[in-house]
Amino acid sequence: MSAEIFGKQTTIELRKKHIGPSCKILFSNDPVKIVQAKGQFMYDETGQRYLDCINNVAHVGHCHPEVVRAGQQQMEQLNTNSRFLHDKLVLYAQRLQATLPEKLSVCYFVNSGSEANDLALRLARQYRGHRDIITLENAYHGHVSSLIDISPYKFHQLSDAEQNPFVHVAPSPDVYRGKYRADHPDPATAYAHEVKDIIERVDRKGGKIAAFIAESLQSCGGQVIPPVGYFQQVAAHVHKAGGVFIADEVQVGFGRVGTHFWAFQLQGEDFVPDIVTMGKPIGNGHPMSCVVTTKEVAEAFMSSGMQYFNTFGGNPVSCAIGLAVLDVISKEDLQGNALRVGKYLTSRLEKQKEKHPLIGDIRGCGLFVGVELVKDRVKLIPATAEAQEVIYRLKKQLVLLSADGPHRNVLKLKPPMCFTTEDVDLVVDKIDQILTELEDALGLKFQNTENESSKRKMVDEIGLKCRSDLVNTKGNNQAVLGQKTKRVKT
Amino acid sequence: MSAEIFGKQTTIELRKKHIGPSCKILFSNDPVKIVQAKGQFMYDETGQRYLDCINNVAHVGHCHPEVVRAGQQQMEQLNTNSRFLHDKLVLYAQRLQATLPEKLSVCYFVNSGSEANDLALRLARQYRGHRDIITLENAYHGHVSSLIDISPYKFHQLSDAEQNPFVHVAPSPDVYRGKYRADHPDPATAYAHEVKDIIERVDRKGGKIAAFIAESLQSCGGQVIPPVGYFQQVAAHVHKAGGVFIADEVQVGFGRVGTHFWAFQLQGEDFVPDIVTMGKPIGNGHPMSCVVTTKEVAEAFMSSGMQYFNTFGGNPVSCAIGLAVLDVISKEDLQGNALRVGKYLTSRLEKQKEKHPLIGDIRGCGLFVGVELVKDRVKLIPATAEAQEVIYRLKKQLVLLSADGPHRNVLKLKPPMCFTTEDVDLVVDKIDQILTELEDALGLKFQNTENESSKRKMVDEIGLKCRSDLVNTKGNNQAVLGQKTKRVKT
Repeated sequence: MSAEIFGKQTTIELRKKHIGPSCKILFSNDPVKIVQAKGQFMYDETGQRYLDCINNVAHVGHCHPEVVRAGQQQMEQLNTNSRFLHDKLVLYAQRLQATLPEKLSVCYFVNSGSEANDLALRLARQYRGHRDIITLENAYHGHVSSLIDISPYKFHQLSDAEQNPFVHVAPSPDVYRGKYRADHPDPATAYAHEVKDIIERVDRKGGKIAAFIAESLQSCGGQVIPPVGYFQQVAAHVHKAGGVFIADEVQVGFGRVGTHFWAFQLQGEDFVPDIVTMGKPIGNGHPMSCVVTTKEVAEAFMSSGMQYFNTFGGNPVSCAIGLAVLDVISKEDLQGNALRVGKYLTSRLEKQKEKHPLIGDIRGCGLFVGVELVKDRVKLIPATAEAQEVIYRLKKQLVLLSADGPHRNVLKLKPPMCFTTEDVDLVVDKIDQILTELEDALGLKFQNTENESSKRKMVDEIGLKCRSDLVNTKGNNQAVLGQKTKRVKT
Repeated sequence: MSAEIFGKQTTIELRKKHIGPSCKILFSNDPVKIVQAKGQFMYDETGQRYLDCINNVAHVGHCHPEVVRAGQQQMEQLNTNSRFLHDKLVLYAQRLQATLPEKLSVCYFVNSGSEANDLALRLARQYRGHRDIITLENAYHGHVSSLIDISPYKFHQLSDAEQNPFVHVAPSPDVYRGKYRADHPDPATAYAHEVKDIIERVDRKGGKIAAFIAESLQSCGGQVIPPVGYFQQVAAHVHKAGGVFIADEVQVGFGRVGTHFWAFQLQGEDFVPDIVTMGKPIGNGHPMSCVVTTKEVAEAFMSSGMQYFNTFGGNPVSCAIGLAVLDVISKEDLQGNALRVGKYLTSRLEKQKEKHPLIGDIRGCGLFVGVELVKDRVKLIPATAEAQEVIYRLKKQLVLLSADGPHRNVLKLKPPMCFTTEDVDLVVDKIDQILTELEDALGLKFQNTENESSKRKMVDEIGLKCRSDLVNTKGNNQAVLGQKTKRVKT
């Protein structure tokens, strides 16, 4: 372990004094001081080892030696801006492009997911001179002003007057808790129609749609997996209105979903967004990010005559690190690992769902999994306090997990991609134990015994799952299937 | 030299194919491929060495070994987010704070100058719930949407309808070419009154001023040095209206001005901004940045209930690098070097001004210097093509310089802070030679011989200079002093 500079209490006091109080720390009543990390493990100042189940930034594993070495070597040699030619800039753009559908061929390198999403909005608005944006309920797209505007996850805290009149919110395509659920005959079309309705309303008021933006799978919004076919239909409506489709892959890209490199590809090969934004995992923690778009969108942006210059974006160190991340994903077959370990994780969690009434839904693809806790499987009352309790107890047992979603009741698993089946066993066993204790204390028991496999069949039939034979996601529960009219959204 | 991956022509072609065409390269007809850099020198793929006179990001010198080592070591150990306690985060905040007036005590770590300025606007708007922003003519504050809105350098390319109605533009406090010049008895007060007028106009329309934002010295705007006392008076007007003063130090901070660590300190000890934003030099090229503000502003921001989380901001690697940059500035006395070498640079340029009619003005502080080229010292007709020609010829002679300002006629010198008097001699001798050739070709000669020292005296008397005895800046020329009525703004 590296030596501490300050005792923990001093660190806490200096943080209170000098770091903005809006920057919250995890486990604020007893925060964790981390001094070192490796793979899927983080170490505190006493040498205690935590299993990291939440850090999708340390994508190929914390401090991966190959990524570290690439950064170290390039730092020694050159770190300057993209106004000079540099081979690693173009090589990296070429390599990224090779992971994407062919028409997504033009890159803009920036420093963060927020910068990427902001630039995506600028590209979209310049494309046809339109201004209105459609975003999803509970969406989070970043922390700069323009993104607070399109992030209901954030702006629901603002007054109506503070909300941007050019932003329109469509229902989240959440088939568990949303407007159209697993029992709906065609939730993809129903949710896409909601977007169409917004476009028509905007049009009647004289507005023009610049873009629809969505995470390919909503993350902060509660690990939501949109029904297959939703994006295609939305894109058709949006294109007809002259807008573009922005797929935000900041949280979910780079092989995490297991079956595909990009999460938008879960919708099928017939779907290609106009703009893709990347972030968090792209540099395994190094501040970097990218926007990829089509030649047409890029040329329209240039036609404004306004140059785009990003001081740090696309510097040689970032590009060297980005290249190393792509290499490691490929060499270590981390996408394959996400698929295999993700499948094991989901299957183990499904068994927990049969055992624990607090588990309302298990959904996810690869190593992007959500466990939604509810107090009542019929009314879907969010088990918010219970989710927080699970998180706190896990932390005491040296497992780092978080809870998110609009009700903060969805346990989020999005670990480094080197996560193993042993790690799965460890975290699932602990969740099992904690839920057992909580349910005992609450006196919670199953109130009916309807056969789980019949529900599963129904869900599979309506196609609410990740593509491929390796079904990791449903978005469904028994009670809702039998209780169409009882939608309680709290 | 490191091996190339692609031949130069392939690099150019791949760049055309895969990098957004709005991302312009320097010297587009014959761009430079840089493969390595050290100190104030950059090396192309053939091993040719360029003297870097423009890169204020490589602040302590390209690839400074101490900074590189700090980054390398921390990358191996830990690179995670600020939701965990980390000693280097708080140590760095403490060290940064120590360079600032005491009341600027709360830091937010972000990834770029753009993220910093956007957050500054969010802080300002939350402070009293006001919305209107006053910015300066020709200002550039970054590339995200909210900053294009406040950057006339960028938004002058937009139609009126695209410009943000909450943004108001005050005249640039440019005493050479601006509304009030060196011959004005009190340009600081006159320019500050312009801001007061805007506040009153906004107030009459029911608006409320959230902030006045300005670079402490305008950089892209043309290396403009505001008259001493201007910021104090602006701050008084803005505070009275319930707004805050944001000093943008992204280009000019960290000792570059020589006499002080921060450029806003040139205005005098009686001036303290409410928010300071930092960027470019902070990490010597590593993508990082910071906003520092007062406890009051930070607490008002928190009171909105909205958390602020920045994925990469304040990560241990960025903090380790930031600490190393502060250490090197101090150990190598780079602020002192900026003062000494900057003084030598300005004095050599002043002599060039006596010789070359194309030089209209020399202004600057420390290693932040502008040479404004004009075709006519009376009418101040910008010598835009000539400035571009100087840049191109210098590049051919292996010296990297740029031209900026609203007329692209200001040669900008802002080299790495390890710049030496030998480097000054090299670049000034070359400028001398190129200007001689250009003036010969144009048939340009001085049309009067009025004594330069008498003008200098007048300028000094009205205080239009950097504080300290080491006068590096004037913002004046002979012709204007005698031609009050002949303001030709082209």
